[in-house]
Amino acid sequence: MSSADECDDLVSFRRDLHRHPEPAWCEFYTTSRIVEALDARDVDELYVGPAAIDGDARRNVPDDDTLQTWLDRARAAGADPSVLETVSGGLTGAVAVLDRGDGPTIGLRVDIDALPITEAREDHVPADEGFRSEHEGYMHACGHDAHTTIGLGVLDAVADSDFAGTLKVFFQPAEEKGSGAEPMAKSGHVDDVDYLLAVHVGFDHPTGEVVAGFDGFLAVRDFQAAFVGEPAHAGANPHQGRNAIQALGTAIENLYAIPRHGDGPTRVNVGVVDGGTATNVVPEAAVLSGQVRGETTELMEYTYAEAERVLRSAATLHDVELEIPQDVGASAPSAESDDEVAAVVAAVAGDVDGVTTVLDRAVLDGSEDATHLMRRVTHNGGRAAYVGVGTDHPGGHHTETFDVDEESLRIGVEVISGAVTDLAERRP
Amino acid sequence: MSSADECDDLVSFRRDLHRHPEPAWCEFYTTSRIVEALDARDVDELYVGPAAIDGDARRNVPDDDTLQTWLDRARAAGADPSVLETVSGGLTGAVAVLDRGDGPTIGLRVDIDALPITEAREDHVPADEGFRSEHEGYMHACGHDAHTTIGLGVLDAVADSDFAGTLKVFFQPAEEKGSGAEPMAKSGHVDDVDYLLAVHVGFDHPTGEVVAGFDGFLAVRDFQAAFVGEPAHAGANPHQGRNAIQALGTAIENLYAIPRHGDGPTRVNVGVVDGGTATNVVPEAAVLSGQVRGETTELMEYTYAEAERVLRSAATLHDVELEIPQDVGASAPSAESDDEVAAVVAAVAGDVDGVTTVLDRAVLDGSEDATHLMRRVTHNGGRAAYVGVGTDHPGGHHTETFDVDEESLRIGVEVISGAVTDLAERRP
Amino acid sequence: MSSADECDDLVSFRRDLHRHPEPAWCEFYTTSRIVEALDARDVDELYVGPAAIDGDARRNVPDDDTLQTWLDRARAAGADPSVLETVSGGLTGAVAVLDRGDGPTIGLRVDIDALPITEAREDHVPADEGFRSEHEGYMHACGHDAHTTIGLGVLDAVADSDFAGTLKVFFQPAEEKGSGAEPMAKSGHVDDVDYLLAVHVGFDHPTGEVVAGFDGFLAVRDFQAAFVGEPAHAGANPHQGRNAIQALGTAIENLYAIPRHGDGPTRVNVGVVDGGTATNVVPEAAVLSGQVRGETTELMEYTYAEAERVLRSAATLHDVELEIPQDVGASAPSAESDDEVAAVVAAVAGDVDGVTTVLDRAVLDGSEDATHLMRRVTHNGGRAAYVGVGTDHPGGHHTETFDVDEESLRIGVEVISGAVTDLAERRP
Amino acid sequence: MSSADECDDLVSFRRDLHRHPEPAWCEFYTTSRIVEALDARDVDELYVGPAAIDGDARRNVPDDDTLQTWLDRARAAGADPSVLETVSGGLTGAVAVLDRGDGPTIGLRVDIDALPITEAREDHVPADEGFRSEHEGYMHACGHDAHTTIGLGVLDAVADSDFAGTLKVFFQPAEEKGSGAEPMAKSGHVDDVDYLLAVHVGFDHPTGEVVAGFDGFLAVRDFQAAFVGEPAHAGANPHQGRNAIQALGTAIENLYAIPRHGDGPTRVNVGVVDGGTATNVVPEAAVLSGQVRGETTELMEYTYAEAERVLRSAATLHDVELEIPQDVGASAPSAESDDEVAAVVAAVAGDVDGVTTVLDRAVLDGSEDATHLMRRVTHNGGRAAYVGVGTDHPGGHHTETFDVDEESLRIGVEVISGAVTDLAERRP
Repeated sequence: MSSADECDDLVSFRRDLHRHPEPAWCEFYTTSRIVEALDARDVDELYVGPAAIDGDARRNVPDDDTLQTWLDRARAAGADPSVLETVSGGLTGAVAVLDRGDGPTIGLRVDIDALPITEAREDHVPADEGFRSEHEGYMHACGHDAHTTIGLGVLDAVADSDFAGTLKVFFQPAEEKGSGAEPMAKSGHVDDVDYLLAVHVGFDHPTGEVVAGFDGFLAVRDFQAAFVGEPAHAGANPHQGRNAIQALGTAIENLYAIPRHGDGPTRVNVGVVDGGTATNVVPEAAVLSGQVRGETTELMEYTYAEAERVLRSAATLHDVELEIPQDVGASAPSAESDDEVAAVVAAVAGDVDGVTTVLDRAVLDGSEDATHLMRRVTHNGGRAAYVGVGTDHPGGHHTETFDVDEESLRIGVEVISGAVTDLAERRP
Repeated sequence: MSSADECDDLVSFRRDLHRHPEPAWCEFYTTSRIVEALDARDVDELYVGPAAIDGDARRNVPDDDTLQTWLDRARAAGADPSVLETVSGGLTGAVAVLDRGDGPTIGLRVDIDALPITEAREDHVPADEGFRSEHEGYMHACGHDAHTTIGLGVLDAVADSDFAGTLKVFFQPAEEKGSGAEPMAKSGHVDDVDYLLAVHVGFDHPTGEVVAGFDGFLAVRDFQAAFVGEPAHAGANPHQGRNAIQALGTAIENLYAIPRHGDGPTRVNVGVVDGGTATNVVPEAAVLSGQVRGETTELMEYTYAEAERVLRSAATLHDVELEIPQDVGASAPSAESDDEVAAVVAAVAGDVDGVTTVLDRAVLDGSEDATHLMRRVTHNGGRAAYVGVGTDHPGGHHTETFDVDEESLRIGVEVISGAVTDLAERRP
Repeated sequence: MSSADECDDLVSFRRDLHRHPEPAWCEFYTTSRIVEALDARDVDELYVGPAAIDGDARRNVPDDDTLQTWLDRARAAGADPSVLETVSGGLTGAVAVLDRGDGPTIGLRVDIDALPITEAREDHVPADEGFRSEHEGYMHACGHDAHTTIGLGVLDAVADSDFAGTLKVFFQPAEEKGSGAEPMAKSGHVDDVDYLLAVHVGFDHPTGEVVAGFDGFLAVRDFQAAFVGEPAHAGANPHQGRNAIQALGTAIENLYAIPRHGDGPTRVNVGVVDGGTATNVVPEAAVLSGQVRGETTELMEYTYAEAERVLRSAATLHDVELEIPQDVGASAPSAESDDEVAAVVAAVAGDVDGVTTVLDRAVLDGSEDATHLMRRVTHNGGRAAYVGVGTDHPGGHHTETFDVDEESLRIGVEVISGAVTDLAERRP
Repeated sequence: MSSADECDDLVSFRRDLHRHPEPAWCEFYTTSRIVEALDARDVDELYVGPAAIDGDARRNVPDDDTLQTWLDRARAAGADPSVLETVSGGLTGAVAVLDRGDGPTIGLRVDIDALPITEAREDHVPADEGFRSEHEGYMHACGHDAHTTIGLGVLDAVADSDFAGTLKVFFQPAEEKGSGAEPMAKSGHVDDVDYLLAVHVGFDHPTGEVVAGFDGFLAVRDFQAAFVGEPAHAGANPHQGRNAIQALGTAIENLYAIPRHGDGPTRVNVGVVDGGTATNVVPEAAVLSGQVRGETTELMEYTYAEAERVLRSAATLHDVELEIPQDVGASAPSAESDDEVAAVVAAVAGDVDGVTTVLDRAVLDGSEDATHLMRRVTHNGGRAAYVGVGTDHPGGHHTETFDVDEESLRIGVEVISGAVTDLAERRP
C-alpha cells in the first residue's frame, strides 16, 4: 500500500516530532505540524484546538508562563503562526475528517504529547542519528510521535483506497496527564462514530506482533486535597493552631482503610504529601495527592466517593479547611475492546507483511484515557477497540532509552487502515 | 460542746448508715433516716427529694428495676414510707434550714451515697463490731456516712449556740457518680448562701489533722459515644458495611491527639471500649467511654469541645451514626477554696480539742462535684471552702478495708460548727 | 438401591441427631451414636476420637466445665459410656473404613457438629413432629445431622454394592468453628485417599438440584490479639500508664489499611473489640478479634502476615505487651473441586431418581474447613470435589427455622454412593 | 564609665556586624572581626574556632558549598585571612579570657549569628543610615550584633576596672539553630566558671528596663525522621510496595497522642512533612521534622523518648526503614536564673544611668540554647543568670523591621560589667 516514499515521509515526520517533544496542553509545534500536514492533504473537514476539544473540560493545564514558554519554543522551531494563534492558551489537538460517501463513520484516536524525561545521549538511536530531543528534559518516551505519524499514514492510506464512509482521525493532546480524552469526547466529534480504533505501540510486544484488542483498563482518578488551618507557636499556644498536618495524618490512615469492595478490585494510593514550615509552628497547610482505581468505573467511583468523605471528615476532625481542586489529575474510566472490531483487526493483521503473531486479546496493566472516547462511542451504540502494534523498544516505556522500531510505523498504518476499510463494509 | 450523749448518738447514727449503704440516686433509706432525724429536731425548713434537687438535671440515674430494688430494700429496713414515697424515682437528698435571725446565710454540704464495693469481713472494725454493710456488694468506703453524721451534728451544735443568721445543710446524693451536686445547685437553695463549707474526712490525713481549705480540684467531664453503623458480611460484601469499629479506632487515635493547651494542663482518656459481634461481620456498633479534665473549667471545656468534634467527625468519616448521651457520666468544674473562709476554719480548728495539726492549704489530687455548689456560691458573690477532717483510715478510700476513726466525727462537728458561728459574725 | 426401610432408618437416625445438637468438640452423644451405628454394621476398621484426629492440632476447644456439661448431657441422653470415655476431653469424631479389596481408596467427609442457635418452636417441622432440639439454645441449623446420616447411608449402600476398593467415611467434628478438619487431616487418615468427596446440603439449592463441584472457597483465618499494658490514674499520672486502648486504636486503623494485593481479592476485618475498665483509668487491657481472607491461601497468608506485623508494631508503639493466641479461631485454605471427580458426580446424579437439575459448577460464597482435607488429598496426588445436594430449606442456614427436606437424604446417599462406585472403577 | 569615644566605637562595631549578618556556623566575618578587636586589646588568652568549641558536637552544620560561599563572602568583605583559615569548615566562635589575679571566674555569654530574613528597605534605621545588611536575604533580626558588641564593651570596662578574678567572654555561634551552645559547653571552657551571665536585648522590654533574671526556659529538642520503603506501581502491585507515607501517617497520629505527663506541661509538634513522588507510585520516601518540649529537661526527654519509640514502631508497622539523624535540629535544656546572681544584677542595674525599671524576674516564652552553658555551670557548682537589657525595637524579634536602640549598648555594658565586678567580690 504505502510506497517507499510514503514510508520515508512517515519516518521523517516522526523524527521531526521526536525532536520537538511537548508536554500535555503545550503541543503547539506538534499541532502546527499536524495541521500543516493535513492542509497538504485532501481532508474534508479539519477542526483545530478549540474546535477539536471542549476547552472548559480540560484539567492539569499548566500556568500561563509555562504555556508561553512552549509557545515561544514552537514559534522559534518554525511552527505556523496562524495555527499557534489558534491553539495558544493550551487548546491543542486536532480532528481530521475524510468524507468518502455513504458508509459507517470510523474513528481513529492517536495521542500526541510527550513526557518530562531527559532523553539518553548515548547508545540510543535518536541520539546517534541526530533526532534526539531538542527540548532538554522532555522526550517522546511513550511512542506518541509514532502514534501521530500512524494517524497521518492511515489517513493517506484510506484516502488512497476505495473506502466508502467517513474517517475521523483524533489527534488527542494530554494523554500523559490523563486529561486530553475527556475534553475531546465532550467536543462531540465522536458522537456519530460507529467504530472507534485507538492504537498504541510497544507494551513489550516486539515488532511483528499485533494485539487485536486490549482489555483490562483500570478506571482511575487522581485527586488532590489541600488542608488549610491556622498556624500557632507550638510551644506557647498549641491550642490556638488548627493543624493541617494532623488532618493529613488522619486522612492518610483512613484513605488506605477504605473498605475493599465485594464486586472487584479497587485501589487507593496517597502518592505525594507536603506540609508545614518549621518545627516550632503548628502547621497551617498541607497538601496530599492521591489516586483511586477500580476494575470498573463504578468500583473506582465508589472508592473516590469514600475518599472524598474521608478527606472532608479528616478536615472537619481537625477543624481545618479543605479544598479539593477539580481541574487537576488524571481520570479515565474502565473499558473493554469490542469482540467484533477486534476480530476484524485480527483478520486484517494476519495478512499484513511483517506481522508474525496476532494476539486476539491482551490485558493492559494500567490506565489510558482513550477509554473516555471508547465509552462515549459505546454509550452511543458504537463499538471500540484498543489495538496494539508491537515494536522493538530498547528501554521500557517512560524511560530515557525508549525508542520505536520505525518498521512498526508501516505495520501500524497497514493494520489500522486495513481494519478501517474492512469495517466500512459492515453495516453497524 | 457536744455532750458524751450527743457523741454516742452521732456514732450510732453513723453506724446505722454504714449498715445500709446505698448507691447514687438510690439513697432511699439514707434520706429517710436523715428526714426522721431532722423531724426530731427543731429545723425551720426542710426540703426533701424533688424539693431539694432539680430532678431534670440528674445524670446517671439507674433504671427503674434498680430503683425499685433499692426502694424495696429501704422499706424492708424500716424506712419511713411517706419519705420513700417522696423520694421514689431516684429523687433523693434533702436540705435542712435553721433560721436564727439576722445574719449571713451559711451552707454546709455533706454527701450521702455509697459505693459498689464489697466490704471486708475480717480485721475490720465494722465487721468486728457488728455494723458491716447489710447490702452485700455495697459499702460506705469513702466516709459519706461520717459526712452525713457530721452534717447532723453541726446542725445540733449550731442550734445550741448563739448563732445569728441562717444555716443550710445540704445532704447531697450521688457524689460518687459526680452527678448529685449539679441538680442540687440548680435547685436554687445555695443561691443566697454567703459562705459555703464542704467537708470530707480522710484523704490520708490522720485523726487530729485539719485542712482548712483544699485546692486543685481538676475540672472533669465524662462522656460516652455510641457509634452505630451497618453490619455486612466481611468476606462477601465489606463495602456494604458501615464500620463502627473503624470509627472507634479513628476516634481513639485522635482523642488522645487533641492539642495540649498553652494555659495549663488538660487530660483526655478513653477508658472503656466495646464493639462488634463476630470476626466475619463488619461491626455495626461500638461504644466508647472517656473523660476529659482541665486545671480549670475552661481548659476542661476546651478539651471537651475538641473531643466532641473528634467524635462527630470520626463518625462522619466512617459514615456511621453517633449518639452522645448527655445524662451519663461525672461532671465537675474546678474550684479553689476561699482564703478568708479557710482562715476562719484554720483559726477555729486550732482551738478544737484533739486537733494537733492545721494545714492552711492542701491540694486534692482529683475531682469532686462539690465544686458545682462552690462555683454557684462564688458566682453569686459568696465564698466557699472545702475542708478536710483527718481520720485514721486503715484501708484507702474506695477499698474494702476503708473505715473512719469515729473520734473524727466529734472533731468534724466542732471544727465546722465553730467555723459556722465565727463566719456568722462577719458581714459579707 | 435403598429400600423404604433403610430410608426410614436414615430419617429416624437423622431425627435422633437433630434432637441432640452438640457444639464443636462437644459431639459426645453424636460420636457415640455414630459408633453404635457403625458397630452394628460390617466395617473393617473404626477409629474413634483420639484415633481419628490429631488432638494437639485442635483449636477453639471449650473449657473443661463446658466439656463436662456436654459429657453429662450425652450420658443422660443414653450415650454409650465406653465411647464417652474415649472421646471425653473434646476428642470427638470418627473414621470408618470399608475394605473391599483391590481398588482406589475413596474418602467421604461429613461434618457432625451443631450451632449455638435456639430452634424455632412454631411453624417448624422438627417442632411439629417432635424432634426439636432437646438442648435449648443449640440447634442443627446447618444440616450436619443430614450430612452424618448421609455418611452412614453411603456406607451401607457401598457395602451392598459390588464396589472394589476402600471407602473411608470421615465423621468430622467442629466444622462450625473452622477447626475440626485440620486435626483430622493431620491424623493421616486421608493420606492414601485417591478421591475425596465432601457433601453439603442446601445452600439455596432446592431438593432435586445437585452441584457436582463447588468452587470459590475463600481461604480464611481468624485471629485474636490481647494487648496488656499498665493502668494509671488518667488525671494524676497519665504518663505512668501503658495504654492498651491506644494500641488497639492504632491496630484498628492500620489493619484495615493493609495494602491490597495485586494478585487477587483479600479481606481484613476487626470484628470484635473490648477493653478498659473505667473512664478515669488509663486502660490496661484490650482485646481484638479479627479475620483475614484471600482468594487463595497465599493471599490470605500474605494478609495475615501483614496483620501480625501491624499488631506487633501497634503494641510496641504504645509500649504494651501483645499475646496472639494460636489455638482459637477458624482456619481454612482455599480449594477448587477437581474436574474429573465432578464429572463423575454429575454423570451419576443425572441418573438418580428425583434429581431434576445437575449443575457442573457453583461458587460457594464463603469458607469451609473441608478444604484442609481437600488440599491434603490433592497435595498427595489425589483428587477432591465438594458436592452439593439440594434440599428445600424453609429458613436460611444458621437461622432458627432452618430444616432439611428428608427426601434429600435418599438423594444424597444415591448420588454419593453412585459416585463412589463409579470412581472405584477408575485407576488414579 | 565608658567615655563617649568608647560608645562611638561600640556603635561603629555593632553597625559593621549588622552590615555583615551570617547564619549559624558561617560566622566567618563576624569571628574575624571579634578576633581582630580582641587582638587590639589586652586579653590574656584567646581561643578561636576549634579551640573554642568541640567541633564534633556541632549540629546543623551547612553543606560544604554553603560554607565555602560564606567564607568567600567573608574574605571579600575584608576578613582576616589567618582567622578565616582557622574557622573554615564551620568552626566559628571565640573565647576571650581576662586574667586579673585572685578571685572568682566569671563568664559572659553572647551569641553572634544572624537569621535568614530579608531586611526592610524603608522606614528602617539601618537602611536610612547606611548599615543595612549587605548579605541580601540575611539579617541581624534578633540583636546578636548588639550582644557581640556588649561582650566586647564589657571586656573593656572590666579591664579598666579594679576587677580581681578571671573574666571569660564566650562569643557563641549558631544560637538561632539551637546548636552552638552545646559544643561550646563541651569545650570545657565554662567548667571553672563560678558565675555565668548571659545577656539578651529586647523581648518587648523597652530601653531603660532591665530583667535581672529570666526564667521559664522550656527544654526543647528538634528531631527529624526519614522513612524509606520500597516503591511499587500502586495499581498493579500495591502489595510490593513498602509505604513510607503510611508510616508517616501512623507517626503523625501517634506523636500527637503521646501521653501528657502528670508532672508538668509537655509539647509535641510535627512541623514539616514531605514525601512521595507521583500519585500512581506507592511512596518510597517520606520525611518528618518535629519538636518536643517540656517544662523541665526531664519532661522534654520523656516526650522525646516516647516520640522516638513512636517513630521506630510506625516504621516497623509499615515495614519501612527509619533514619533519625542526630546532627540536625535545635536542642536546649530548661534552666532557671540563680537568685543570688540575679539579685546582684538587679542591685547594679538600679544604679545605672538610663535604667528606669528593674524587674527581678520575667518569664521567657520560649527556648534558648544558653541553657546548655547555664546547666554545665550549675552542674559544676556555679551559678548562672540570664539577663535582659531592654531596647526599643520597632519590629518584633525575627521580623524584617527589627532594630535595637543603640543606647542599650551602653546600658548593657554598664549593667553587665558592674555585675561582673560586684560578683568578683564574692567568694562562691
